[in-house]
Amino acid sequence: MLLGGHILMAQITSPLSGENLTITGEALQGSLTDLLDLALVGKQAHWNLVGRNFRSLHLQLDDIVAIARTRADEVAERAVALGLNPDGRAATVARDTQVQQPEVGYLEDSKMVAVFTDVLGAMVKRMRDRVTATEEADPVTQDLLIAVTQDLEKQHWMIQAQR
Amino acid sequence: MLLGGHILMAQITSPLSGENLTITGEALQGSLTDLLDLALVGKQAHWNLVGRNFRSLHLQLDDIVAIARTRADEVAERAVALGLNPDGRAATVARDTQVQQPEVGYLEDSKMVAVFTDVLGAMVKRMRDRVTATEEADPVTQDLLIAVTQDLEKQHWMIQAQR
Amino acid sequence: MLLGGHILMAQITSPLSGENLTITGEALQGSLTDLLDLALVGKQAHWNLVGRNFRSLHLQLDDIVAIARTRADEVAERAVALGLNPDGRAATVARDTQVQQPEVGYLEDSKMVAVFTDVLGAMVKRMRDRVTATEEADPVTQDLLIAVTQDLEKQHWMIQAQR
Amino acid sequence: MLLGGHILMAQITSPLSGENLTITGEALQGSLTDLLDLALVGKQAHWNLVGRNFRSLHLQLDDIVAIARTRADEVAERAVALGLNPDGRAATVARDTQVQQPEVGYLEDSKMVAVFTDVLGAMVKRMRDRVTATEEADPVTQDLLIAVTQDLEKQHWMIQAQR
Amino acid sequence: MLLGGHILMAQITSPLSGENLTITGEALQGSLTDLLDLALVGKQAHWNLVGRNFRSLHLQLDDIVAIARTRADEVAERAVALGLNPDGRAATVARDTQVQQPEVGYLEDSKMVAVFTDVLGAMVKRMRDRVTATEEADPVTQDLLIAVTQDLEKQHWMIQAQR
Amino acid sequence: MLLGGHILMAQITSPLSGENLTITGEALQGSLTDLLDLALVGKQAHWNLVGRNFRSLHLQLDDIVAIARTRADEVAERAVALGLNPDGRAATVARDTQVQQPEVGYLEDSKMVAVFTDVLGAMVKRMRDRVTATEEADPVTQDLLIAVTQDLEKQHWMIQAQR
Amino acid sequence: MLLGGHILMAQITSPLSGENLTITGEALQGSLTDLLDLALVGKQAHWNLVGRNFRSLHLQLDDIVAIARTRADEVAERAVALGLNPDGRAATVARDTQVQQPEVGYLEDSKMVAVFTDVLGAMVKRMRDRVTATEEADPVTQDLLIAVTQDLEKQHWMIQAQR
Amino acid sequence: MLLGGHILMAQITSPLSGENLTITGEALQGSLTDLLDLALVGKQAHWNLVGRNFRSLHLQLDDIVAIARTRADEVAERAVALGLNPDGRAATVARDTQVQQPEVGYLEDSKMVAVFTDVLGAMVKRMRDRVTATEEADPVTQDLLIAVTQDLEKQHWMIQAQR
Amino acid sequence: MLLGGHILMAQITSPLSGENLTITGEALQGSLTDLLDLALVGKQAHWNLVGRNFRSLHLQLDDIVAIARTRADEVAERAVALGLNPDGRAATVARDTQVQQPEVGYLEDSKMVAVFTDVLGAMVKRMRDRVTATEEADPVTQDLLIAVTQDLEKQHWMIQAQR
Amino acid sequence: MLLGGHILMAQITSPLSGENLTITGEALQGSLTDLLDLALVGKQAHWNLVGRNFRSLHLQLDDIVAIARTRADEVAERAVALGLNPDGRAATVARDTQVQQPEVGYLEDSKMVAVFTDVLGAMVKRMRDRVTATEEADPVTQDLLIAVTQDLEKQHWMIQAQR
Amino acid sequence: MLLGGHILMAQITSPLSGENLTITGEALQGSLTDLLDLALVGKQAHWNLVGRNFRSLHLQLDDIVAIARTRADEVAERAVALGLNPDGRAATVARDTQVQQPEVGYLEDSKMVAVFTDVLGAMVKRMRDRVTATEEADPVTQDLLIAVTQDLEKQHWMIQAQR
Amino acid sequence: MLLGGHILMAQITSPLSGENLTITGEALQGSLTDLLDLALVGKQAHWNLVGRNFRSLHLQLDDIVAIARTRADEVAERAVALGLNPDGRAATVARDTQVQQPEVGYLEDSKMVAVFTDVLGAMVKRMRDRVTATEEADPVTQDLLIAVTQDLEKQHWMIQAQR
Ligand SMILES: [Fe+3]
Ligand SMILES: [Fe+3]
Ligand SMILES: [Fe+3]
Ligand SMILES: [Fe+3]
Ligand SMILES: [Fe+3]
Ligand SMILES: [Fe+3]
Ligand SMILES: [Fe+3]
Ligand SMILES: [Fe+3]
Ligand SMILES: [Fe+3]
Ligand SMILES: [Fe+3]
Ligand SMILES: [Fe+3]
Ligand SMILES: [Fe+3]
Ligand SMILES: [Zn+2]
Ligand SMILES: [Zn+2]
Ligand SMILES: [Zn+2]
Ligand SMILES: [Zn+2]
Ligand SMILES: [Zn+2]
Ligand SMILES: [Zn+2]
Ligand SMILES: [Zn+2]
Ligand SMILES: [Zn+2]
Ligand SMILES: [Zn+2]
Ligand SMILES: [Zn+2]
Ligand SMILES: [Zn+2]
Ligand SMILES: [Zn+2]
Repeated sequence: MLLGGHILMAQITSPLSGENLTITGEALQGSLTDLLDLALVGKQAHWNLVGRNFRSLHLQLDDIVAIARTRADEVAERAVALGLNPDGRAATVARDTQVQQPEVGYLEDSKMVAVFTDVLGAMVKRMRDRVTATEEADPVTQDLLIAVTQDLEKQHWMIQAQR
Repeated sequence: MLLGGHILMAQITSPLSGENLTITGEALQGSLTDLLDLALVGKQAHWNLVGRNFRSLHLQLDDIVAIARTRADEVAERAVALGLNPDGRAATVARDTQVQQPEVGYLEDSKMVAVFTDVLGAMVKRMRDRVTATEEADPVTQDLLIAVTQDLEKQHWMIQAQR
Repeated sequence: MLLGGHILMAQITSPLSGENLTITGEALQGSLTDLLDLALVGKQAHWNLVGRNFRSLHLQLDDIVAIARTRADEVAERAVALGLNPDGRAATVARDTQVQQPEVGYLEDSKMVAVFTDVLGAMVKRMRDRVTATEEADPVTQDLLIAVTQDLEKQHWMIQAQR
Repeated sequence: MLLGGHILMAQITSPLSGENLTITGEALQGSLTDLLDLALVGKQAHWNLVGRNFRSLHLQLDDIVAIARTRADEVAERAVALGLNPDGRAATVARDTQVQQPEVGYLEDSKMVAVFTDVLGAMVKRMRDRVTATEEADPVTQDLLIAVTQDLEKQHWMIQAQR
Repeated sequence: MLLGGHILMAQITSPLSGENLTITGEALQGSLTDLLDLALVGKQAHWNLVGRNFRSLHLQLDDIVAIARTRADEVAERAVALGLNPDGRAATVARDTQVQQPEVGYLEDSKMVAVFTDVLGAMVKRMRDRVTATEEADPVTQDLLIAVTQDLEKQHWMIQAQR
Repeated sequence: MLLGGHILMAQITSPLSGENLTITGEALQGSLTDLLDLALVGKQAHWNLVGRNFRSLHLQLDDIVAIARTRADEVAERAVALGLNPDGRAATVARDTQVQQPEVGYLEDSKMVAVFTDVLGAMVKRMRDRVTATEEADPVTQDLLIAVTQDLEKQHWMIQAQR
Repeated sequence: MLLGGHILMAQITSPLSGENLTITGEALQGSLTDLLDLALVGKQAHWNLVGRNFRSLHLQLDDIVAIARTRADEVAERAVALGLNPDGRAATVARDTQVQQPEVGYLEDSKMVAVFTDVLGAMVKRMRDRVTATEEADPVTQDLLIAVTQDLEKQHWMIQAQR
Repeated sequence: MLLGGHILMAQITSPLSGENLTITGEALQGSLTDLLDLALVGKQAHWNLVGRNFRSLHLQLDDIVAIARTRADEVAERAVALGLNPDGRAATVARDTQVQQPEVGYLEDSKMVAVFTDVLGAMVKRMRDRVTATEEADPVTQDLLIAVTQDLEKQHWMIQAQR
Repeated sequence: MLLGGHILMAQITSPLSGENLTITGEALQGSLTDLLDLALVGKQAHWNLVGRNFRSLHLQLDDIVAIARTRADEVAERAVALGLNPDGRAATVARDTQVQQPEVGYLEDSKMVAVFTDVLGAMVKRMRDRVTATEEADPVTQDLLIAVTQDLEKQHWMIQAQR
Repeated sequence: MLLGGHILMAQITSPLSGENLTITGEALQGSLTDLLDLALVGKQAHWNLVGRNFRSLHLQLDDIVAIARTRADEVAERAVALGLNPDGRAATVARDTQVQQPEVGYLEDSKMVAVFTDVLGAMVKRMRDRVTATEEADPVTQDLLIAVTQDLEKQHWMIQAQR
Repeated sequence: MLLGGHILMAQITSPLSGENLTITGEALQGSLTDLLDLALVGKQAHWNLVGRNFRSLHLQLDDIVAIARTRADEVAERAVALGLNPDGRAATVARDTQVQQPEVGYLEDSKMVAVFTDVLGAMVKRMRDRVTATEEADPVTQDLLIAVTQDLEKQHWMIQAQR
Repeated sequence: MLLGGHILMAQITSPLSGENLTITGEALQGSLTDLLDLALVGKQAHWNLVGRNFRSLHLQLDDIVAIARTRADEVAERAVALGLNPDGRAATVARDTQVQQPEVGYLEDSKMVAVFTDVLGAMVKRMRDRVTATEEADPVTQDLLIAVTQDLEKQHWMIQAQR
């Protein structure tokens, strides 16, 4: 995400400035990368899944993808509303993502549960750091990140309950 | 997309085989890469857009993203139904995409129209090649690719009409 | 429909060119004239109908009109997407239509069934010629014309079943 | 529209008669011609439009077409309910229409605004004459024509506001 | 309907008074009786109908009943809003109705068409008298009675078109 | 309701005959009279109601009317399905009804509660007799009458709870 | 339907046993055969119908098919809930059905009315026997069979009303 | 399906004739038999299923049944539109079906997956032959058969993914 | 509302002129002020209401506010369609309103009924004057004002019925 | 549930009395306790469930809870309609419930299937006793208890099918 | 609610630990008990209510029950997502509830208002303590408890406004 | 907004008191004034707008008005729930508003964008002060004000993006 400095003339004025803007911008761009990649690996698993629990998990993965897409849009639009430029291009996501990548090919259902337990568990940790980071910097952004965290923790439980 | 050869035990049997399967698999994986990246650059522009036509184009980009996401799911699920493994991970899309990438930062509305006229124009050309390629190999897949092409040509017109 | 030649500067670029464009353009403009006039004579009969089967046929004619209007829009927008200018003005339809025109005044229900059996039967023949003509020229357009033909053949059956 | 005289045996009895029926019939047939042609030129512009405001006007034209089609059906069915035979065939519309016809080919957005400001402005004038004409002849018809006029005056404003 | 005089203390104040109130009250109570009985004889025919057109007419009668019930409610509530007491009890309807009553027992479809052509034709005449009567007395009530008349004339046409 | 005997040629054959048909026919015609009059007096009160609880009771009366109308249609169509001719004309309802009639004029809310407590209480008693009467004669009809009774007892409670 | 005896280990325990289970099982399997075949012959007629009442009867047949399918599912699932195995395979239906089979080829509308009057009339008789048979054996099943009978008797009336 | 020859007077005229009609008729009647029996065995398994994956497969079988019923209706109505008489009676389905029949009694979930993998795999093969057969004979029918094939191949994948 | 004179260059042309325009403009601006303030005092009472009838009146006030907002939009857009500039700013409403203002603080339910009986009663009087004033000036506007009056008179009854 | 005796002045009059009222009251209060506790233990399991079938059973438990809540409301309102006072307080449910209680803590999916097979199996037995008990006492209540039993037996099958 | 310690092997990992987990767990289990009992006493009053405001309060109680049920599910699922075992069994609710219990028998409307003013007032106090307690321990949980508090304070106002 | 002191007997008890109540009350009354006036000036611009972007901005202004109205209701009802009396009368809004007022007359689209960029920018600043002010005083109110701020900052971006 482009922060104020290296854009000569910001076109959208921001209600934040200085360090608060920087901190909030990093939290938002980090969340965006997480959520966009969650949508991609969620679909990857939705397609390549095999095993006796195929149908249940195939549907659950689409729930996760829907949450990830909706929240990604909110997070990115929150960034623009603060005068920042979110970056959700494939190369940026591929370069910056901290999401564990599945191998290409079939994904057994029990393997899928293990992978997404880890993916969501790690993502929740990063989201909680962002919630802490933005508490002073921007409570409006924090409230959105709290809502995202709540969604992800719920999915985290519902996946790992199937171990 | 993983073709039959390098997976020891294909779990989904295919109604196709040999060259027909290879040709169809390439057409589907190529379409998938196009559509997934169209969804990503569509959202990128949806967020970073500025200019007097902001609202119209912001909404139109979400129409394009919705089409790209729906068609990507159909194309990938068609591949699995043929016993193939679609690959829609960020790194794969970033590596294989032929979609022209927008710069990070604000995107003027007239610039956006020019960029998406090119992006969709080039994508339509690739889709038409895939329609031709699959005519003999798999008419069922071809019918889906024809439908995707029809959608993209319509969006292509509706973007360039605003030049 | 205006084909490339006599417009100095086409504003919408086309994925087709040369004879393919000419053939496809004629098929689309012919289909448009058929469908627009089917909507007009369908309403004409919907209003002036009398006889014991009035209510059933009054409703069925609105089904036909709805199909004709939806398909006309798709056909015309397909033409624009190919860089052509569809022409759906009253004078053009009146001049070019091949649809048998009902007399002004009341239309007996049995007369209406006979008239629309002929109107749809003839239109289906023209649509099938257009399906054949576009097979090589543009398979994307052909797929749309096939869908239109399927709709019209279904209505043709459902009207003549009432003879 | 066929008035009582030249149909030997009117099949639908009328609550009106004599001059009142003649006046009302002319007002309704005139409105029908206006509305049917508004739907046709509205679609013509919806398809052939180009320019920076393409998307907004493309959608607005479909609003106008929807109004024109709904009101045309009400006006024609009002005529039949009075024992008259509305005439909405292409040749009749082409012959009797007072609507300014657009040239074939692309229609620039600013040109479209100018054309429809004129088309709707002139149509509103004719509708107001019909409202006056039917006040004594048939207040039931008048109330419908008033509603049509209100719709058209609203669209007239919303088009010309974009000049 | 109870008019002001013989109720000692009107509980709902009226925007009308004197002759205007009397005229309007009579028009509304008359319309209410007509509409309530139309709903009753409509259902009577809906149940006892036989003949080859049973299904079409059975459904159409329910359309008529729905219109009659909705309009009866509007007419009665209009009366209360003017400080009058509408009377829709069975004995009042039975005593005051001018609607032709069907015999008990099966009703042939062609008989039903003849009966309702007469019932609706006569009711339209009474409604038009009420429209005339209320023009000066209360234009607000008149506008509602015009709308009721328009509905009934439409149904009148659609029934008699089946003769 | 016309029972088999005095119609020379029953047009709808019946699954019942003899005494069973007679008993069932009486139960259905009695229920029909009750339900049609409940709908009429329900609307009468819905319109003429005054008092501090006006709005709650005005809405509740429409719930009662909706139930009465739906059940009346089911009861009458059940009769026709048994080869009987239900009679729901105003004169029949006025002559046969056992429903207590409200005075014309305003109806105080507490008065309305008292009246409908009695009306529904008495109707429930008649319905329970019909349930008993049809147990042997026609268990299919009985099941419908049980459902009607359940609805009416529920409304009876909800009205009298407001005493 | 497989009754307890010849399945070594019933997997679904039953709230019924002995003769009650046998009687109920026969009533349910008989109803299932009737309803599945009603859906098949209903579609057969829906497709092959011709005649002036084509459209009304074509739609009515789809209402009958929808009822037959919904009730068949309820009846079969009731059987499983009782620990029985319903049998709805084509060969079983073909072997056990008591439904009169239409000839292959076009079916005139008046012929269709005659055929379905007989088909439904005979089916209603069988359903009433099952209602009687299950009264003691299982009142829960009886209540479902009563509801099925009520539906079929209503359709029986609505078909034969068109004779 | 009855082809032209042995019906003396075809009532629905056909846009096809000769060998094209014969080939298309066989493809459609074959598809109809497949789809009707798929709906029957799908329900049979939906009811008699047991095992830990009961709920997922019970729901998935209803998805398959819904597809089979919708497509069967389209295929049969396509046949009528071509002047043919589809035959979907139980005896015809039982005699001609190539669908593997499940034993009566409980069906274990893993058994069900194996059975339907085979049933759908074999049906897809037959559908692809019909797609090939109709390419020249009737491209309009072919497009429908392609769509049916696409649906069945998707369900085939989603069933066998659970092996 | 700004009338023609003191705007140098009217941007929206008007179908009216001279005195007709002045009269109509005053009627519309007066109605707008009434309706906007009705929405404001309606919400004020919706919030500050107390008493045993709180819930019923709280909901009824939201019905009144919804009507006031919808009608205000129609009235204002009617003004613009006539080339006028409606003025709905807080200061204008506060300065011109003739609506009786409630005290700040809690509003007892019986007090609320008294206040709104007066507010609506007075507003109805003003609306009826506007209906009279516009009869000659603009029957199209008059028809809208009649509809507004009908809504307000209905609410007036439903409030005062609770006295 | 409080029966007549120990309430000095029953406020809701009852269509039943004496022993019939006592028997029916006990059947309804017993059903209410069963259904309220089924909703509570259903949610308890919905939350604490773990195991590979988590998602399917988590959703199925919400179906059961929805049925239990809807039926509990119907049963309790049936009791009030009979002049009884249903008691659904936590202490009453805890004291009177016959439902087997799950341990606190995680509930394995196979354990959950075993528990709910028993819970529903025992509840069905109690419901069948209540159906028998109310046959003479109150057939209206019996019909509701039959419907509840049918729902519970269906859920009983669908749970135990997963053993 | 079972906290980490006394379950040997927690199956759901928690993003919290130590005192934060303990504090949050107590806040959630306390909220769950409050909400489950609010749903139970809300229904208890919904059923046993009498008095002139019966209908308004009967409906309002169902609003409160719906809120209580939805929020209870969210609160319990939040607990599971934190690796805790919520306990919502009847005995636990009966033992731990701090909600004032209504007497068995009829509940006068004014009594009901007094009772629920107290019940909700006390519950809001406990919720605010939980909001304070979780601020440091888990801001994600706090945000949910804030939302619950906002709902309950709104209902508290709307009940006591009716005193 | 009336704070506790100068109302002798507060009818709604508050969960807050002293300075916390004062601070929260000021924040809520200030927000209410802002939101009510935003709805008024939003409609003012919605009506008087002219320019090439008329349609897009006309629709966007209705989005803003809808947000303002919904949030105003929530904010005012939050105040009542705290025992305060919100004041939303026209005179209060006119006196206290800090919203920049547009001139009467036409509003050019670019002017409108400039005005609303300022209006929303200034309002966001005031909202952020209120978020800070209520953090300690009432976190429940703060969470609502945060949500309002998030909505307004999003609209602020979407307006200024069109500069
Ligand atoms: Fe928060
Ligand atoms: Fe092809
Ligand atoms: Fe196709
Ligand atoms: Fe009007
Ligand atoms: Fe009028
Ligand atoms: Fe019984
Ligand atoms: Fe095709
Ligand atoms: Fe007039
Ligand atoms: Fe029963
Ligand atoms: Fe029943
Ligand atoms: Fe906070
Ligand atoms: Fe929040
Ligand atoms: Zn977005
Ligand atoms: Zn998918
Ligand atoms: Zn279009
Ligand atoms: Zn029409
Ligand atoms: Zn009403
Ligand atoms: Zn009916
Ligand atoms: Zn089922
Ligand atoms: Zn069909
Ligand atoms: Zn508007
Ligand atoms: Zn309830
Ligand atoms: Zn849940
Ligand atoms: Zn509100």
